[in-house]
Amino acid sequence: MITEAEQREAQGYAAERLGAAGIVLTDEEAAAIEVADFGLGRLREIGLQILVYVNTDRYCAKELVLYPGQLCPEHRHPPFDGTPGKEETFRCRRGSVELWVAGDRIPLEPGEQFTIPSDTLHWFQAGDEGAVVSEFSSASRDDLDIFTDPRIVRAPRVAENPT
Amino acid sequence: MITEAEQREAQGYAAERLGAAGIVLTDEEAAAIEVADFGLGRLREIGLQILVYVNTDRYCAKELVLYPGQLCPEHRHPPFDGTPGKEETFRCRRGSVELWVAGDRIPLEPGEQFTIPSDTLHWFQAGDEGAVVSEFSSASRDDLDIFTDPRIVRAPRVAENPT
Repeated sequence: MITEAEQREAQGYAAERLGAAGIVLTDEEAAAIEVADFGLGRLREIGLQILVYVNTDRYCAKELVLYPGQLCPEHRHPPFDGTPGKEETFRCRRGSVELWVAGDRIPLEPGEQFTIPSDTLHWFQAGDEGAVVSEFSSASRDDLDIFTDPRIVRAPRVAENPT
Repeated sequence: MITEAEQREAQGYAAERLGAAGIVLTDEEAAAIEVADFGLGRLREIGLQILVYVNTDRYCAKELVLYPGQLCPEHRHPPFDGTPGKEETFRCRRGSVELWVAGDRIPLEPGEQFTIPSDTLHWFQAGDEGAVVSEFSSASRDDLDIFTDPRIVRAPRVAENPT
């Protein structure tokens, strides 16, 4: 769980990093940036900031923003609705990211990309400058993601304000 | 048909415009930018520059670059291989573009986007500053595109050098 203040701060960081990468957002998009701590309460170490441009029942496009050293924990995208599960292409825009796919290390610098097959275990971690990564994929169903660490809760929960 | 010089010049223009939008390309990507004159030989008026990031059998992502006032002529993406045809989302990054979808005018400024249903007639034209437009879509099969103008040839042809 994260606090509203943590969520706002991470949204602000992500919007600033996207802007520095030349990406123009509407105010509504900046306010809708998802901040995921995976239920572990250690956002700056294990977490992800996500802007979803579009997610139809056929394809999806997102921007992922990571703090320096921030890590998205190992998971896979299983088959659903008769499809083989989400296939996704990561393209590094700014900073750097180290992607691990089925045990292989794939370092990505700006302008480099890699396509992760469906239903394949992967995790990734930003380098010292953080990272902005575009994700192009088939339809996204984050609620179906299967994480290796059983403590993980994918849907972000934000603590309610004390009243 | 375009000449090799026209092709090189348009590739250089597109690479420069993508760079100005903050998009980092590899040298191989810059050299692979597609220059389409639709067989009409009036590239600056009717044409398109295209960088394909990825095109799997499930999804596709491209950048489209247009010269000021350049127009991509009316076409649709028909059903194929048991799919309803290509569905695509245009997101304006720089400049401006006027999109026409089934007779409706949809002007797009940076940060604005629109999703075009499959098998639906559409065309678009850049504003006075040209445009950089991201395209997110289901799988792309440009060779199947159906253009309203029967003179159009989708696959670019480049004149061979005189020897």
